[in-house]
Amino acid sequence: MTQFQDRYLFAVNLCHDAGDEALSYFKDRGNLAVDQKGTQDWVSEADRNVELLIRARLAEAWPDDGVYGEEHDPKPGTSGFDWVIDPIDGTTNFVNGIPSWTIVLAGVVKGRTELGVIRDPNVGETYKALRGMGAHLNDVRMQVASGTPLSSGTVSVGYSNRVEATNVIPVIADLIGHGAMYHRNASGALSIAYVAAGRLLGYMEEHMNAWDCLAGQLLVEEAGGQVELQDANAMIRDGGRVVVGTPDVFDTLVNIADRAWNG
Amino acid sequence: MTQFQDRYLFAVNLCHDAGDEALSYFKDRGNLAVDQKGTQDWVSEADRNVELLIRARLAEAWPDDGVYGEEHDPKPGTSGFDWVIDPIDGTTNFVNGIPSWTIVLAGVVKGRTELGVIRDPNVGETYKALRGMGAHLNDVRMQVASGTPLSSGTVSVGYSNRVEATNVIPVIADLIGHGAMYHRNASGALSIAYVAAGRLLGYMEEHMNAWDCLAGQLLVEEAGGQVELQDANAMIRDGGRVVVGTPDVFDTLVNIADRAWNG
Repeated sequence: MTQFQDRYLFAVNLCHDAGDEALSYFKDRGNLAVDQKGTQDWVSEADRNVELLIRARLAEAWPDDGVYGEEHDPKPGTSGFDWVIDPIDGTTNFVNGIPSWTIVLAGVVKGRTELGVIRDPNVGETYKALRGMGAHLNDVRMQVASGTPLSSGTVSVGYSNRVEATNVIPVIADLIGHGAMYHRNASGALSIAYVAAGRLLGYMEEHMNAWDCLAGQLLVEEAGGQVELQDANAMIRDGGRVVVGTPDVFDTLVNIADRAWNG
Repeated sequence: MTQFQDRYLFAVNLCHDAGDEALSYFKDRGNLAVDQKGTQDWVSEADRNVELLIRARLAEAWPDDGVYGEEHDPKPGTSGFDWVIDPIDGTTNFVNGIPSWTIVLAGVVKGRTELGVIRDPNVGETYKALRGMGAHLNDVRMQVASGTPLSSGTVSVGYSNRVEATNVIPVIADLIGHGAMYHRNASGALSIAYVAAGRLLGYMEEHMNAWDCLAGQLLVEEAGGQVELQDANAMIRDGGRVVVGTPDVFDTLVNIADRAWNG
């Protein structure tokens, strides 16, 4: 599906530039205005202004496309192509000075994610995928890990103030019971990108918003991993559960999620 | 205590150079030989060779000092000054390609840590402290977070194959019960450095080795945080429990650790 090639290249450049902009706020974060959206939920002027930069560039290049972002109102489009954007995934890390946060762009057509880009400006890594064309880290083809059982690998588990926090406990306990190590770096998009890059075996979270997960889910799919199927439009509306993993561990992760979150 | 100023400046430079050496292995890790030391416990030729580089430089500059490292035999000294080194803290991240790992050097005299350096070459950050002289991130004075309760902050919890993995569960449950978020980036030294830098409220682990924690504990102390007291020589011999935190949350973290780990 190369019909979205132009938008894909545009998205890669845009994430790069937005990452540079975010990085300049990050380095000067002593002067950053930070607001609390809810319990353990933060937003800064960097999130808002980086989203405005992304929206302005999209409006100029693709004026008929829809735009759905974390920090500003949805803009419905007429082209059938919708952009789903998280200006800074990992805001808690960002405002506290931990260099683990990313810029996330996904492109959705008819409920299906067609392109996804995750930019980590702290270490200069861009994770990117165009459906049917594979996934790449900078210019190297990505592949999920292969042949590593849960008992020799690490799974990342996320949670947020949108769910009952204690619901994460049985998941961690079950993973440890399988001999896995757990990881939580507080950027869900970055963690899912790590799965695509073969750095983690899987990622699980009871509820994610579309802007946090759609790009990463496509990355994992295009890198040979497995992803719990969802309709992207329903995710844009409501968010939902996310389980991604290598073919070796995916079914086990789904069972662990079912036991913990379908009670 | 500026009598160790020369060794301190030497350690900062050495960590920087060792970090560059480790980074060149990291970027070429497709060719890296990796061995399994035990369950979920890895070592690579990078760990071994970076430690040899550090030992060679120490032997040249401070031939009478003792050296205790993770990957090679102890070398007792006669000067009374002992170096405690972890060539790569976060080896699991390193071998899997996750850019969260550090070089760690501590200097111990009569059971007390006098200097500590933690180098994160992935983002170019050096955390350093000389007892009595404060703690610095690159050239900026560090201070632990102040005025942030557990319910608005994040605590990192580590574990390893040296303890019963399920022992970490009640700690995470208790932290969540206090409204805290948890974090685990699989480099204990880096996480403790984040506490010193005001990026996390605390770090807890049931058992750490001296090379993973002594440098960070001094960083936290010199940055105005609190540290569960230990004799550094006993830590070099046996390792032990580690709890560090901001003055706002430290007592609560100690209580959580006592409930979970003194059963």
